[in-house]
Amino acid sequence: MGDYRKLWTDLGVDLEKHDKLCAVLPELYGATYLSQENRPEGMNYFNFVVSEVHGLRIQELDEARKEGRKVVGTFCVFVPEEIILAANAISVGLCAGSQFWVEDGEKVLPRNLCPLIKAFMGAKIGGTCPYFQSCDMVVGETTCDGKKKAWEVLENYLPVHVMDLPQMKRYKDYIKWSEEMKFFIEKMEEITGNKITVEGLKEGIRVSNEKRKALKRLYDLRKNSPSPISGLDSLLISQIAFYDDPKRFTEKLNELCDELEERVKNSRENDKKRILITGTPMALPNWKLHSIIESLDAEVVVEETCTGTRYFENEVSPKGDTIDELVKNLGDRYLNINCACFTPNTGRIDDIIKYSKEYNVDGVIDCNLSFCHTYAIEHKDVEKSLKENNIPIMHIETDYSTEDSGQIKTRVEAFLEMI
Amino acid sequence: MGDYRKLWTDLGVDLEKHDKLCAVLPELYGATYLSQENRPEGMNYFNFVVSEVHGLRIQELDEARKEGRKVVGTFCVFVPEEIILAANAISVGLCAGSQFWVEDGEKVLPRNLCPLIKAFMGAKIGGTCPYFQSCDMVVGETTCDGKKKAWEVLENYLPVHVMDLPQMKRYKDYIKWSEEMKFFIEKMEEITGNKITVEGLKEGIRVSNEKRKALKRLYDLRKNSPSPISGLDSLLISQIAFYDDPKRFTEKLNELCDELEERVKNSRENDKKRILITGTPMALPNWKLHSIIESLDAEVVVEETCTGTRYFENEVSPKGDTIDELVKNLGDRYLNINCACFTPNTGRIDDIIKYSKEYNVDGVIDCNLSFCHTYAIEHKDVEKSLKENNIPIMHIETDYSTEDSGQIKTRVEAFLEMI
Repeated sequence: MGDYRKLWTDLGVDLEKHDKLCAVLPELYGATYLSQENRPEGMNYFNFVVSEVHGLRIQELDEARKEGRKVVGTFCVFVPEEIILAANAISVGLCAGSQFWVEDGEKVLPRNLCPLIKAFMGAKIGGTCPYFQSCDMVVGETTCDGKKKAWEVLENYLPVHVMDLPQMKRYKDYIKWSEEMKFFIEKMEEITGNKITVEGLKEGIRVSNEKRKALKRLYDLRKNSPSPISGLDSLLISQIAFYDDPKRFTEKLNELCDELEERVKNSRENDKKRILITGTPMALPNWKLHSIIESLDAEVVVEETCTGTRYFENEVSPKGDTIDELVKNLGDRYLNINCACFTPNTGRIDDIIKYSKEYNVDGVIDCNLSFCHTYAIEHKDVEKSLKENNIPIMHIETDYSTEDSGQIKTRVEAFLEMI
Repeated sequence: MGDYRKLWTDLGVDLEKHDKLCAVLPELYGATYLSQENRPEGMNYFNFVVSEVHGLRIQELDEARKEGRKVVGTFCVFVPEEIILAANAISVGLCAGSQFWVEDGEKVLPRNLCPLIKAFMGAKIGGTCPYFQSCDMVVGETTCDGKKKAWEVLENYLPVHVMDLPQMKRYKDYIKWSEEMKFFIEKMEEITGNKITVEGLKEGIRVSNEKRKALKRLYDLRKNSPSPISGLDSLLISQIAFYDDPKRFTEKLNELCDELEERVKNSRENDKKRILITGTPMALPNWKLHSIIESLDAEVVVEETCTGTRYFENEVSPKGDTIDELVKNLGDRYLNINCACFTPNTGRIDDIIKYSKEYNVDGVIDCNLSFCHTYAIEHKDVEKSLKENNIPIMHIETDYSTEDSGQIKTRVEAFLEMI
């Protein structure tokens, strides 16, 4: 890593605290990732991205800002990156996956709250996330009570624009979501000073669709038995998709996929159990569950999560000659995501069953971050439907601490033996 | 209590389990309520209502249903009773305030969930609430993640209509809420077969406003020092307001207020600390906190809760000659409620400060049901604003169990000594 201390200082990073974070991450990454055997060559790019996670990319953002571009932080797959790109701004999905930040978050938030929310808040108020420090604005959404109210707290630290996501998927909700996207367009035009044009929005749609296609290609390759890439590596790629430069990311991911196609041709069968993970998102660097599963005789072959299929499934149609038409296309794609924030949300169960077949999985692990009510309540229905379809399922509720790792490992081991 | 066993059986009540509940309630009521000294005569009506809580009122509902009227259950101050009345149906706010029901609720819901939600679910699936058994439909709303997803589970047991409450209070959200109320009108017309007319809706508005006026009168009387009525008695009246016949309730409450006015004239000063309670609702028979506070040298003089001021503050304007105009009036009143489900919700803090002055309170207790994210997150802001206004405040997070009662009593005692 280069010397970015001046850059960090300029961004208002708490250097002393940040040093502690920088000391933890490489060790965790080494033990979790670099220790894997027979990794694809193409993972070198992603190793590099991680090694420069608070360095080169932050410098890129800094240079872009010096040229007058704006950086917009997001936390959710519902925030339309296309609009951010169309305003010539940069979208960064912010990290919120480490226990490191939880303590600071609990200074302003209740302890009985999802670790992801406490972590992002802690990352900001502790001043240890250079991405957060680089953001000109954060875009929040009303996907859960915890985040909805946390934006009010976050607004004490930086500008936040909240998109009010509908709670249902009726015709009127599509209209409502289009209105929210138009407000967001206005907001982006206001903070960037750039007019969002039909051409610009089409280009944003094109770039985002290319990223989706590459991710879909990666996931399709995982349908092979054995998968040519570990669940851990695939998860990392999904996590990086949120904050890397989208064009470079897509290019590098496609290169990796080329390599994976070759690997598939020469692969030898193994008898690892194939696992689908469903549930709440796994933000960088939350690799806890994948790490446990793949330390056993199993591989994660698909994630029906926001750091998985929900992020890239379904493209946005580029057809249309007006902003209104394109916004409608955006709405049609985004409201098609089956998040537990909607009522009802039976489409998620259909997705899990469909993916279980397509990826030929042996079992499903429904994993919830602690205190996430929507996914926790859905579990019973997910379980019932999967059992009716003879798909084994287990439920794990956990946070970012490592205290329960041993217990989770024992439970997953028992599950793998049973299926 | 008369013999209602045949009625209960016909309603599908689990008699054996229900007997256990009936054995607990009178004892709790006796110890909490009847032991109070110098209660107003007018409380006799409310004592009678409680003694017949699963009897006479259930029989009334049964008789109404035999005449073809419908019974609609509700759980939230946002459900417009006016529309239910206008359809010649009966609105009953369902109880969800006892630990008795939590165990059954946890059979289908996560344990890490607000006790109110677990309790109402348990009351239904355990078949121990004759009100639930009398309901032709329940009206849910999207005020929190827990309830929003719990309706999906409840729908397995009886018909549920969900009203999608906006998350913000912009102009477009008022429009949206009007639409939801019109859907609700259609739904009520459908299940009752009765057309909702301008006259009918005006009468519904009139009846509900009269109830609000009577409650406001009660609360205004509590502004006197000492209050002519205990916080416990006042809480009970608010709880009964949700399910009693509204006209009879209003009449009886006004009679009580006449008596309280006389009491005020002859009252002698005391040195009890005057407490405002803010936070989550206290559903029947949740008298835990009031009971603790009033066992000490203090009286609860106002509740900024859904079983307090949020239920009755602001009337609905009866002006207008069309359904659209009246629906707009309903929207204007209901969206004015300052619930933590909205973002932002600074109006609630203004209310707490205003009431603190109007009721001349010595301190505020912000009480949250466990796992209620929205109120829990708001606490820090409430605390900060109250401190700036030199109003002492303490925070309590609790559920329906009695395990922490001793600890809460100690904390409240310390708070009272301090203020």
